[in-house]
Amino acid sequence: MTKIVIIGGVAGGASAAARARRVSETAEIIILERGEFVSFANCGLPYHISGEIESRDALLLQTPESFKSRFNVDVRVHNEVVSIDRQAKQLTVRNLMTYEMYQESYEKLLLSPGASPIKPPISGINNHFVHSLRNIPDMDKILSNLLLHKPKHATVVGGGFIGLEMVEALRHLGLDVTLLELADQVMGPVDLEMANMLHQKLVDNGVDLRLKTGLTAVDEYPIQLAEADNTGDYDKPILPHYHLQLALSDNNTLATDLVILAIGVKPETSLASECGLVLGPLGGIRVDEGMRTSDADIYAVGDAIETADFVTGNPTLIPLAGPANRQGRLAADNMLGGDKKYRATQGTAICKLFDMAIASTGLNEKSLLKQNIPFEKIYVHTASHASYYPGAHPISLKLLFCPDSGRILGAQAAGIDGVDKRMDVLAVAQRAGMTVHDLADLELTYAPPFGSARDVVNQAGMVAANVLLGDEAICHSQDLHALTAKQIIVDIRNPGELTAVGSIAGAMNIPLPELRDRLNELPKDKELLVFCQVGLRGHVAYRMLIQHGFKVRNLTGGYKTYQMVNARF
Amino acid sequence: MTKIVIIGGVAGGASAAARARRVSETAEIIILERGEFVSFANCGLPYHISGEIESRDALLLQTPESFKSRFNVDVRVHNEVVSIDRQAKQLTVRNLMTYEMYQESYEKLLLSPGASPIKPPISGINNHFVHSLRNIPDMDKILSNLLLHKPKHATVVGGGFIGLEMVEALRHLGLDVTLLELADQVMGPVDLEMANMLHQKLVDNGVDLRLKTGLTAVDEYPIQLAEADNTGDYDKPILPHYHLQLALSDNNTLATDLVILAIGVKPETSLASECGLVLGPLGGIRVDEGMRTSDADIYAVGDAIETADFVTGNPTLIPLAGPANRQGRLAADNMLGGDKKYRATQGTAICKLFDMAIASTGLNEKSLLKQNIPFEKIYVHTASHASYYPGAHPISLKLLFCPDSGRILGAQAAGIDGVDKRMDVLAVAQRAGMTVHDLADLELTYAPPFGSARDVVNQAGMVAANVLLGDEAICHSQDLHALTAKQIIVDIRNPGELTAVGSIAGAMNIPLPELRDRLNELPKDKELLVFCQVGLRGHVAYRMLIQHGFKVRNLTGGYKTYQMVNARF
Repeated sequence: MTKIVIIGGVAGGASAAARARRVSETAEIIILERGEFVSFANCGLPYHISGEIESRDALLLQTPESFKSRFNVDVRVHNEVVSIDRQAKQLTVRNLMTYEMYQESYEKLLLSPGASPIKPPISGINNHFVHSLRNIPDMDKILSNLLLHKPKHATVVGGGFIGLEMVEALRHLGLDVTLLELADQVMGPVDLEMANMLHQKLVDNGVDLRLKTGLTAVDEYPIQLAEADNTGDYDKPILPHYHLQLALSDNNTLATDLVILAIGVKPETSLASECGLVLGPLGGIRVDEGMRTSDADIYAVGDAIETADFVTGNPTLIPLAGPANRQGRLAADNMLGGDKKYRATQGTAICKLFDMAIASTGLNEKSLLKQNIPFEKIYVHTASHASYYPGAHPISLKLLFCPDSGRILGAQAAGIDGVDKRMDVLAVAQRAGMTVHDLADLELTYAPPFGSARDVVNQAGMVAANVLLGDEAICHSQDLHALTAKQIIVDIRNPGELTAVGSIAGAMNIPLPELRDRLNELPKDKELLVFCQVGLRGHVAYRMLIQHGFKVRNLTGGYKTYQMVNARF
Repeated sequence: MTKIVIIGGVAGGASAAARARRVSETAEIIILERGEFVSFANCGLPYHISGEIESRDALLLQTPESFKSRFNVDVRVHNEVVSIDRQAKQLTVRNLMTYEMYQESYEKLLLSPGASPIKPPISGINNHFVHSLRNIPDMDKILSNLLLHKPKHATVVGGGFIGLEMVEALRHLGLDVTLLELADQVMGPVDLEMANMLHQKLVDNGVDLRLKTGLTAVDEYPIQLAEADNTGDYDKPILPHYHLQLALSDNNTLATDLVILAIGVKPETSLASECGLVLGPLGGIRVDEGMRTSDADIYAVGDAIETADFVTGNPTLIPLAGPANRQGRLAADNMLGGDKKYRATQGTAICKLFDMAIASTGLNEKSLLKQNIPFEKIYVHTASHASYYPGAHPISLKLLFCPDSGRILGAQAAGIDGVDKRMDVLAVAQRAGMTVHDLADLELTYAPPFGSARDVVNQAGMVAANVLLGDEAICHSQDLHALTAKQIIVDIRNPGELTAVGSIAGAMNIPLPELRDRLNELPKDKELLVFCQVGLRGHVAYRMLIQHGFKVRNLTGGYKTYQMVNARF
């Protein structure tokens, strides 16, 4: 009989406990959770705040009682592990309800402590009107703030997943919202031009977006009664007209009623480091492929650990629910004598923002540049399903691939419909080691309400394969800003399109249908940088021109990508 | 300069022409199309009939003029090829507008004639109120029939893709609809228990579904004037109260106003066979991997050809738009000196039926049985996204896999939300040669509106992997009908569930939360066939019982699959 103790009862810990029981009916399994809840749906918290998920109970996936009856697991909430004695294989635990301390031994220990919200050491940050959102009590505090103080303006600090979800939730509730983001873009996992689609969506939804702007201090205004509240009616509770004054990194100030801090999370490693377990270079707990820490009897999973990046093999921190669940399951097997190996993490992720979704997998361009990994990139903007069937919306897809092998390095996509599907397809293809050539040949479901005979992903694969095979030379938006005297820009769209959406300064215009008859207007001693709206007609023009002896490149993703790259927020 | 002639200007032919021009600016490219239209959206036809696609023009993707201006392709509609002289490399063509005949030479010839609707030789089938639906004129005829004759009752013969889409379209328009299907199920690509979900959906939507029932004769009723029409008002056009009387294979008759014949298509091979090209065993044109027929200068693509099945390598007929497009592109490359190879076809497909979608890829159980290919199968019924977020619906997924290697042989899924995404993921995984173990580890996009931390496909992979690894022994619904004295059925659901949805006759009930305490009620000398609602709790029970020394199997897919298997229509 193995005695397994699990510290932390949410995603990774709860999965491990359930799996451990399925593997061994005789193991003694204890979950020590310092919070009140185990196995709650932390990804659902913003949606209960917004009211879209009506029932708070819906977020509580398991209770200590259900764990006991179904899995015979001893779940102790409000029990905090204070220290780990690795020699004695003994834990010191504090019962947070009674403040009693006790010892608990283990044979195998699993650390699933998660990550904690980063709280920068700035003046006034501990104000009661400044919230993080990581668990049910955090959510309850925000909800009671909303209910009691009826804030009119909220400030969200940080434009990652939780920040964006909270912006949407608060707008949904009718608040005015300012979003502060220190970087030049929200949603770090995607590149700037893709994030610009989110920036536009935020602005379109009335969000006061402030990029390159940090929070430097929080001040309270004194409580003031407005005239209208001076009714002399003592039975009527007086709502404090509470306001915070925020100091910002651009030296502006901002009056607000409520702050949501969402600038990221850091691995919870205090217990691990205090007992001498080895941490990795990024500050997460180091584990091997079997989820073992530097102590053979201690395992760790979830947001607290470093895993290997799928593309580079380098350590990475991936605070996502899917990997945490799989790691928990695998650690349980291994604690009970198995020898399963965790595979590297792609970091596949998605975020909803109003009616849009944005998703990514693998590495982005920023990381590839930083790590000096050679890559090529292409863009397509293709309808989510047959364009003649109602409800189709363009998906903007960026594909990053190895310029030699065509192996998929990463992908990003944004749009209103079908983004999750395309990213899933690409995530599977990347994991399978497929190349862009394989993408062109994928056989995907097609009927007009669901896709196209040539799907977005097929299209991206064909475009990338054309580049690899030398069937098309492409240029990028940046190239159009650094024109030499030997280059000219040719816009091959129809005049109506130029009027409707604009063009690029200095570009000459020859519509594609006239191009073959007007070749004599084009110089053969210059390089023609051709573009259309999304890149497809540009390819047709490229093929025509190159065969007629011109030097040509086609702007990948066309004018639409150019606009994404050059948008300013 | 190569002269390429393409016979047939829809999916495969149009793709080939566009690609050929991109590859060669100098090639002479001619499309001979006997119909009025090229490159139309034949998959959209039912949706224009229903009115969901409002504009008929939306179905016309390219015109001869746009082909000419963009691709410099000579498109000749209403031009029918009468014969092929392979020795002389010469075609005899009839202009269907003038009835003039002329000769056209080719260097490379591409056959893209498509497939034609099967019209059984039964009495009265050529009635004007009996329609097929394959092209724009067919659609126009049905629309004018609907407009002029205001039919109240329609009969659709055949429950494949077009049949089901037409049933929905006609119901959408308010007609009473009878669906005749000779087989015991609609939608041949999926197995009976999956098709039963469609049968239920048809019945729920007021369709008069008649399985195992064929059409044996069509008779006209004489035109009769109803009392109310005898107004003496001669200016008022008299709507004929037109009725057909159908004779059915079960000796019943059926009065109807309109018949849609949708019993399948057969490859258009008359030109090919008349000029001596080799046909395959299924009656399609035989081609090699480069799309070459038995004549090195004649290529063929699309619904008219046989390709290799992805799983078995055997010839198969796959009349789908996606493969036709890819084949056209590839044939163009090869006609112009390339050496591209077409990969085998999985037959990935999807069909919308009212608010439901059903999709499949690879081989189904019927084909595996017929071809004596060893397989195992599992079922899961998992929410399309986090169940606590609004709009989640269960997806019923059947996974067929090799019992040795775990290689994916085929998959089928049905549900209201997210079916296309899961089938695409599985189609990519199958094409990549992944096993069920790989499915368990896939990293897919997850946020509550889009998926779950453990997605439907992950779940299916885990269940199948458990079977392969011996972590679970499963039984199937059929096993419960052939109980021996050494077996008992144990329903581990809660009493409320039994009351709500029923149970299996003879099953004893011990709810899972009580199971560990009531083990003494179970016999050790009998095999316990346990089941829950969808199979997950059954797995927990299985693991518990097997470790306590019981002989056990868990019903894969649980009671929900049992109901699908045993539904009768």
